[in-house]
Amino acid sequence: MSVETLGRTGDSLNIPAEQQAPTPERIFSAINSYQLTEAIKSAIQLEIFTAVGEGNATSATIAKSCHASERGVRILCDFLTIHGFLTKQEASYFLTADSAVFLDRQSTAYVGSAIEFLLTPRLRECHDRLTEAVRRGGTALGEGMLDPENPDWVKFAQGMMPMMRRSAEIIAAELRREAEAHKVLDVAASHGMFGISVARQNPAAHIYASDWKNVLEVAQKNADAMGVGDRYHLVPGSAFETDFGNGYDLALITNLLHAFDAPACTKLMRKVHIALNAGGRAAIAEFVPNPDRVSPPVAAAFSLTMLAATALGDAYPFTELESIAKAAGFARVDLSPVELGINRLVIAHR
Amino acid sequence: MSVETLGRTGDSLNIPAEQQAPTPERIFSAINSYQLTEAIKSAIQLEIFTAVGEGNATSATIAKSCHASERGVRILCDFLTIHGFLTKQEASYFLTADSAVFLDRQSTAYVGSAIEFLLTPRLRECHDRLTEAVRRGGTALGEGMLDPENPDWVKFAQGMMPMMRRSAEIIAAELRREAEAHKVLDVAASHGMFGISVARQNPAAHIYASDWKNVLEVAQKNADAMGVGDRYHLVPGSAFETDFGNGYDLALITNLLHAFDAPACTKLMRKVHIALNAGGRAAIAEFVPNPDRVSPPVAAAFSLTMLAATALGDAYPFTELESIAKAAGFARVDLSPVELGINRLVIAHR
Repeated sequence: MSVETLGRTGDSLNIPAEQQAPTPERIFSAINSYQLTEAIKSAIQLEIFTAVGEGNATSATIAKSCHASERGVRILCDFLTIHGFLTKQEASYFLTADSAVFLDRQSTAYVGSAIEFLLTPRLRECHDRLTEAVRRGGTALGEGMLDPENPDWVKFAQGMMPMMRRSAEIIAAELRREAEAHKVLDVAASHGMFGISVARQNPAAHIYASDWKNVLEVAQKNADAMGVGDRYHLVPGSAFETDFGNGYDLALITNLLHAFDAPACTKLMRKVHIALNAGGRAAIAEFVPNPDRVSPPVAAAFSLTMLAATALGDAYPFTELESIAKAAGFARVDLSPVELGINRLVIAHR
Repeated sequence: MSVETLGRTGDSLNIPAEQQAPTPERIFSAINSYQLTEAIKSAIQLEIFTAVGEGNATSATIAKSCHASERGVRILCDFLTIHGFLTKQEASYFLTADSAVFLDRQSTAYVGSAIEFLLTPRLRECHDRLTEAVRRGGTALGEGMLDPENPDWVKFAQGMMPMMRRSAEIIAAELRREAEAHKVLDVAASHGMFGISVARQNPAAHIYASDWKNVLEVAQKNADAMGVGDRYHLVPGSAFETDFGNGYDLALITNLLHAFDAPACTKLMRKVHIALNAGGRAAIAEFVPNPDRVSPPVAAAFSLTMLAATALGDAYPFTELESIAKAAGFARVDLSPVELGINRLVIAHR
């Protein structure tokens, strides 16, 4: 902008009018919003929430527990308070409900490990090059996150399991309410939690987990640790190329379709359709925005991740998922009312 | 977290209870909040807001205007809509009040250039190493942003001027309402807007601008372009070391004190006190949090920037600024009620 331009409004300064005018404050905050990412990351790395959960309330005692400086902890905890992840009374900090459940390492629902995947350098770089992605209509980094055997998917399997656990349990219960499944295909199983949850709820179920070989090692470990390893079978390789076998009552396609365009999704769902028994179901867990594509916020915002990190992925409204499943041969597609937080459950009936 | 831990709650799954339980959704969003930084950056770089301001409403026409892909623009514009920087009706996008005033390049109040400083690589790296800064109680990068002649301060002077312009005009008017100033010291003048605004409102005022030599080149250019160059004088060098001279009616200390600890601030304010005439004033524009240090949000959050980017800087509540000014010899210190958006105005009377 030229400095000449500045002169245009300066001479007619009217303070009361200026006071009512919009300020650049929201834009300043939006540009700086990466600071919240860094603050949450630091708080998780330093185990601030765990220290507060143990009863350390002042910056001095939290700092001692976390082997950090008092000044650094005070400023970080104030920042976390501003953003609703702690509360502050006088000079004491306390956990919020969310922080106590999900960010205190002593909680069984601790999800702090999610930063290992969500903030992996390649994903950050994909977003750093968002301008280029908008220009070309897809990731600026080759295949983005979809390189075969990309080790980040091992990080996903390890880091995102806790964040997915609750959804996996709810989905397994909901699917079981409709009908028991005995032979279950878990497509792109990752940590395996979705299939493992089905196996844990139904002792007769056998799970066939498909994913890259390096990722399946994580799934198998989890299956073993959770007591279903003897009913857990591996189908290594790309979901688009591997032979799934057949005779399945249920296929789980969780957080996978968003990585591809509709023709690729249709191709994959056709493979799944063929592998299912008559009467079989495909359960799709996904970010499902409303048709306006701008609500609900978290599901709709996920499209940007796909723009930055994949060639052609997207977050699909239900009608598009329905079209994909029907084009693949499914007879009926339902959007389940169950509440999963970030995801929705779509059930396609063969 | 061990997978064993997962078993503890899984067996007593109760879906209605789970539905009321907190979800990790807010934490997922907080970890991903850097995406808003990248989205705003891309939108500014691609001039999305300018294109929408020109009447391009659909992703197809915006894409054409911005030389970008339709798919990329659609996803980016949806994301900006989710975050309140555009509105969407059917498939058409429109500017919000903030975006029209501050992000459309055709607006005289355009502030998009702020990303050149706010997202400069060194500042991003300071925040990337926040965990280390919390541990040690100050920036992980040497002097952080305060290296002498750091070229980022030229970027600040060039990029942040528009965002500061309105505040500078309001402050100049408020100071003039109390008393005319003829000889004015602008400490760490940067873009020069604070001093230049005083000079523009009072044709008798002479401004003495102190800053690094490379930064003062920007200030002088702005002073020339805004018609006050003949009353603009340069005092190059560190504010802590340069001889300011004396006989000043007014000193401007804008967005500077936050970079230092209280002893250094006191030292600087003592230098300013000596340079002022009897009856002279020091006008301090600052991020001023309430005594709780967690409100108002933007001012209070600024402490984190100082933790990440400086050795000892902070955002000081008014009582601390008052103590600093009184320790430096000032007789009375007032918090002005004028509304500046991000900053507050503190006036110290000699």
